[in-house]
Amino acid sequence: MTTLSGERFQVAYRLATTSLGAARAWTRAICLEQTVEFPADLLPADWIAQELVGREESLTPAGEGAFIATVSYPIETVGGELPQLLNVLLGNISLQPGVRALRMDAPESLLNAFRGPRLGCGGLRALLGVWDRPLLFTAVKPMGLSASELADRVYQMALGGVDVIKDDHGLANQAFAPYRERVARCAEAVQKANRLTGAQALYAPNITGPFDQLRERAQWAKSMGAGGILICPALSGFDAMRALADDDALSLAIFSHPAFLGNFLTSAESGIAHGALLGQIMRLAGADAVVYPNFGGRFSFTRAQCEEIAREAAAPMGALKPIFPCPGGGMTLDRIPELKAMYGRDVMFLVGGDIVRHSPDLTANCRYFRSVVESGAL
Amino acid sequence: MTTLSGERFQVAYRLATTSLGAARAWTRAICLEQTVEFPADLLPADWIAQELVGREESLTPAGEGAFIATVSYPIETVGGELPQLLNVLLGNISLQPGVRALRMDAPESLLNAFRGPRLGCGGLRALLGVWDRPLLFTAVKPMGLSASELADRVYQMALGGVDVIKDDHGLANQAFAPYRERVARCAEAVQKANRLTGAQALYAPNITGPFDQLRERAQWAKSMGAGGILICPALSGFDAMRALADDDALSLAIFSHPAFLGNFLTSAESGIAHGALLGQIMRLAGADAVVYPNFGGRFSFTRAQCEEIAREAAAPMGALKPIFPCPGGGMTLDRIPELKAMYGRDVMFLVGGDIVRHSPDLTANCRYFRSVVESGAL
Repeated sequence: MTTLSGERFQVAYRLATTSLGAARAWTRAICLEQTVEFPADLLPADWIAQELVGREESLTPAGEGAFIATVSYPIETVGGELPQLLNVLLGNISLQPGVRALRMDAPESLLNAFRGPRLGCGGLRALLGVWDRPLLFTAVKPMGLSASELADRVYQMALGGVDVIKDDHGLANQAFAPYRERVARCAEAVQKANRLTGAQALYAPNITGPFDQLRERAQWAKSMGAGGILICPALSGFDAMRALADDDALSLAIFSHPAFLGNFLTSAESGIAHGALLGQIMRLAGADAVVYPNFGGRFSFTRAQCEEIAREAAAPMGALKPIFPCPGGGMTLDRIPELKAMYGRDVMFLVGGDIVRHSPDLTANCRYFRSVVESGAL
Repeated sequence: MTTLSGERFQVAYRLATTSLGAARAWTRAICLEQTVEFPADLLPADWIAQELVGREESLTPAGEGAFIATVSYPIETVGGELPQLLNVLLGNISLQPGVRALRMDAPESLLNAFRGPRLGCGGLRALLGVWDRPLLFTAVKPMGLSASELADRVYQMALGGVDVIKDDHGLANQAFAPYRERVARCAEAVQKANRLTGAQALYAPNITGPFDQLRERAQWAKSMGAGGILICPALSGFDAMRALADDDALSLAIFSHPAFLGNFLTSAESGIAHGALLGQIMRLAGADAVVYPNFGGRFSFTRAQCEEIAREAAAPMGALKPIFPCPGGGMTLDRIPELKAMYGRDVMFLVGGDIVRHSPDLTANCRYFRSVVESGAL
């Protein structure tokens, strides 16, 4: 047998049931399912039955029809690998309706297996040279434009004072604007604007693509001077983002996008809570900034869920750096004063469509976006 | 502009709403959200507005409180890449409660961008040398055993006549049984048993792990003579599985596992329907056999959902080979006669715990499993 350290990490689960007995049986089932997946009475060794399987740490009622079970697992079940951490957290029980992972509390010994964000808030601010205000974030689109048409928009937006311009997450490697050509032109456009403005704006292409081209796309972004990348971890796998964040030769700012991730988030009875998934897990997986749909836009997140994301993006978490929450998803410029008050200074406001709508002059619109963010800057 | 071919693929979505007007507006929003993500009135070119965005093909009531919207997208939006296909299918709208992708209908020109399963049912049968009956599938576990203890179990199960022995999906690279050592010993154990039985049983280690070690783990499995691999695409990314399936130098049987995938499946109002996700998408992504929890086990799939998976695993789909449905998740031996009648011959019965429970003699238990599957074999 391998000796266990005795160190365990805890996961709080919401269980949708009205009965304490059912909640207790369910918790016991989770303890087995997420570790040995084996009949308890047939486990081949005492230390496996007593130490390796999950352990119920607490079980408390949580309002009408729900209990919160806190289960601890030995850190050794994870083997120091992110996919297996997610597997212990919610692997098989994602297939059971009514169980939601609310948060994770991990000892430093487990957290330290992950380097997390390379830059975090401080590093990204240094890269951009912006210390005293929230950051301006936009997306270049739509799909269908050519690489040079997109680059022209990127240039206008950088000239208008936007800090980070990402690809729309739907720009992949389509014939309209193939990845390499698009990145070359858009990165050049930002550099040209930066020479005029004196700023250090950054272009972040969407590298989400084939498994065997992810690193190559990130390297191309780097070599063209892009400075950052956008990735959708639900499409690429969370560990792809982690691997790119860990790559010293790349050293790029990483922006995570929630495409294809929604089914963990939209039900209060299943999946993973907003703060745990978009805060804790995105940080573990190396995002420097996490994009999500803000409350009041065209998606359904609530204000409380957005606050939870922002809180977990900044909460103490071993040696892992705090990261930027990036509320977007139909954000309008008129909401920025309210959101500055709510999020404080360490936020990136992601405004896409509303910048285009403001007037036909994209550069002027971005200057207006900048003035709104700067007025009474925090 | 790039000229579009005019070829489109269709996705049927279930929309949870009682109002036709709301369903129509929602469908229009999906057409934009999943392609250009841009205000319709500001699109920069007519061909983008008229051809590139999604198009409502039909909208019909579907019982109480729901409509089915069929939306078509130009195949060019996908750019021939699987992550972007999933992104068009459900990327951002996964974040909207109440929309579920029911099925995809794609022209051959899109399907042919993907090679799909390397082996499929016929190839896997040839590899195993078994033509005339359902296949026997089990998992070696529990986590906590050493590599040699696991290998001993693998040996006994292969000796008992099981066709495919996979790692439990919770076996990653933990110190109890590190990946390389485990694979070397377990693959050797199957080969030793095969020399005695004359069979061609196969061991499939779980390669789900760090992004930058996935291919290396598959290569190690190959070099040790494992013949197959298990992967959890929700943890690794679907395209990781696709890339490994496409790798001619590997040429391994691929078994997909649904860990961490459940939140697409557990709600009738969101996610992706069972047949589309576990049938169509797993095939596109190169699985030769798809593991899922059978109805009546410890998960919640219904009989109809399982039938849908089996149907889509075998339905005509361009040049893509049919694949094996692998019902598991608490399957007991006594259900096999019923399930043979339901699934027919092209099924792999995945029985784990119940094989261990049957008697203390693992080899005898596997022989019994075999006899149950063979009795009145289809």
